[in-house]
Amino acid sequence: MPPKLTPDEVNAFVAEAFPSAACGGMRCEALGEGTATARWSFDERELRPGGYISGPRIFGLADSALWFATFTVIGIEAMAVTSEMSVRFLRPAQNGDLLARAVINSAGARRLVGTIELWVDGAPDRLVAVAQGAYARP
Amino acid sequence: MPPKLTPDEVNAFVAEAFPSAACGGMRCEALGEGTATARWSFDERELRPGGYISGPRIFGLADSALWFATFTVIGIEAMAVTSEMSVRFLRPAQNGDLLARAVINSAGARRLVGTIELWVDGAPDRLVAVAQGAYARP
Amino acid sequence: MPPKLTPDEVNAFVAEAFPSAACGGMRCEALGEGTATARWSFDERELRPGGYISGPRIFGLADSALWFATFTVIGIEAMAVTSEMSVRFLRPAQNGDLLARAVINSAGARRLVGTIELWVDGAPDRLVAVAQGAYARP
Amino acid sequence: MPPKLTPDEVNAFVAEAFPSAACGGMRCEALGEGTATARWSFDERELRPGGYISGPRIFGLADSALWFATFTVIGIEAMAVTSEMSVRFLRPAQNGDLLARAVINSAGARRLVGTIELWVDGAPDRLVAVAQGAYARP
Repeated sequence: MPPKLTPDEVNAFVAEAFPSAACGGMRCEALGEGTATARWSFDERELRPGGYISGPRIFGLADSALWFATFTVIGIEAMAVTSEMSVRFLRPAQNGDLLARAVINSAGARRLVGTIELWVDGAPDRLVAVAQGAYARP
Repeated sequence: MPPKLTPDEVNAFVAEAFPSAACGGMRCEALGEGTATARWSFDERELRPGGYISGPRIFGLADSALWFATFTVIGIEAMAVTSEMSVRFLRPAQNGDLLARAVINSAGARRLVGTIELWVDGAPDRLVAVAQGAYARP
Repeated sequence: MPPKLTPDEVNAFVAEAFPSAACGGMRCEALGEGTATARWSFDERELRPGGYISGPRIFGLADSALWFATFTVIGIEAMAVTSEMSVRFLRPAQNGDLLARAVINSAGARRLVGTIELWVDGAPDRLVAVAQGAYARP
Repeated sequence: MPPKLTPDEVNAFVAEAFPSAACGGMRCEALGEGTATARWSFDERELRPGGYISGPRIFGLADSALWFATFTVIGIEAMAVTSEMSVRFLRPAQNGDLLARAVINSAGARRLVGTIELWVDGAPDRLVAVAQGAYARP
């Protein structure tokens, strides 16, 4: 892991790079060697009927967590892009912040592959989704 | 296909069911037997740096197109939910409305599976993403 | 499409490159511009209990069809390798040859992405599986 | 986990249920609560040119490991079938037995979802593939 990389540095980078509302409410919460946790702060205005967190939001947080995890391998400067991602929705997500933890499974010359688990804050044993995907290196 | 199902009916249903901003800018554009086309109207405020349409937006439109396509098989009342979806990003999406066309590959008792192609309006031969996924029947 | 590429040429190439039993029973049946059809000849000895064609066989034929389709874009010499593939199983496959038709969705500098439909000979309207995946260019 | 379920019991069940060559060389090696490890014994006759273990073999072992893992949740009698699976190939697999470890991420009324890691015996830190998929309950 590049020395000194902290969630604050990642969040400052993202805030500068993605000023738009599209990233509203998502931030990096923790970083490890080849791992990252991202959090979406609960926002009632975004919910689906019934109070559910939407599929695109779940996809987006999984994607962000994997992106943050790539930073711990190739550095925060490198702008990798999502190549492909598959998401399995396991149960309704509601009534809390959404958390996503990504683990890098392999880092090749062209591609970083990782696996992501998502849950609602307070219920880490009841995953709401799992995902797996790849970032292409520039 | 249930008789008389039109894009206007789908859009009226979605507007009532999903009043939140989360569906902003997405609507049903065309329906066939087991197929649907969805459109996201270009909105600069949502773009990523460089002017790119975001991954979650692409995922969301693919998901919506597949959802609309399920209506043509099981009717607009039935609230199916996304079970799983994989998306492959093929090239940057920018400078125009985003279109997604879904085709239902099979409709079983429990699950509807479909394939989705996405492109920027005006460039149907240059797909920006393809996806494949399933809706679970309630 | 490289001129003159025929299923016979593909089959001769594969027979030489993959002499092992692992490819037993699979061959290229048709080629188009960015498309290919592969056939697995029914072999009772390979069936699962109940007479079903196995999941790995279905995966293998989808993978082969996509590989053959890449030949029509980058030529038969180029040895691309499967990067990732997702398969959805739609209904039991039994009592006949298995066919897979692949269509290339995009051909980039690094990666060819395609979509595959599979059915049992004689029942093209009853897909037994669909798949989507990518080959990495060498 | 159903009491007393052992790899030997799983292997005896599979040998009886799948007598054909299609399962040749694959067996259950370890079981835990919601986890299973499967092994394919190296067999030169199955290799691809260059000495590589084939993609369908990798898919098949991932699928088997996930199937064995479902036994620890719903019991060995229940005949679940693969619903969908995505596989990412990370590096060439060669020169040794192939191992796959599956973890069940969620077990719902209809569907069990799991994540699988694969490596060549002796190199658990160099994954050759990862997969994620679902079994449908009967």
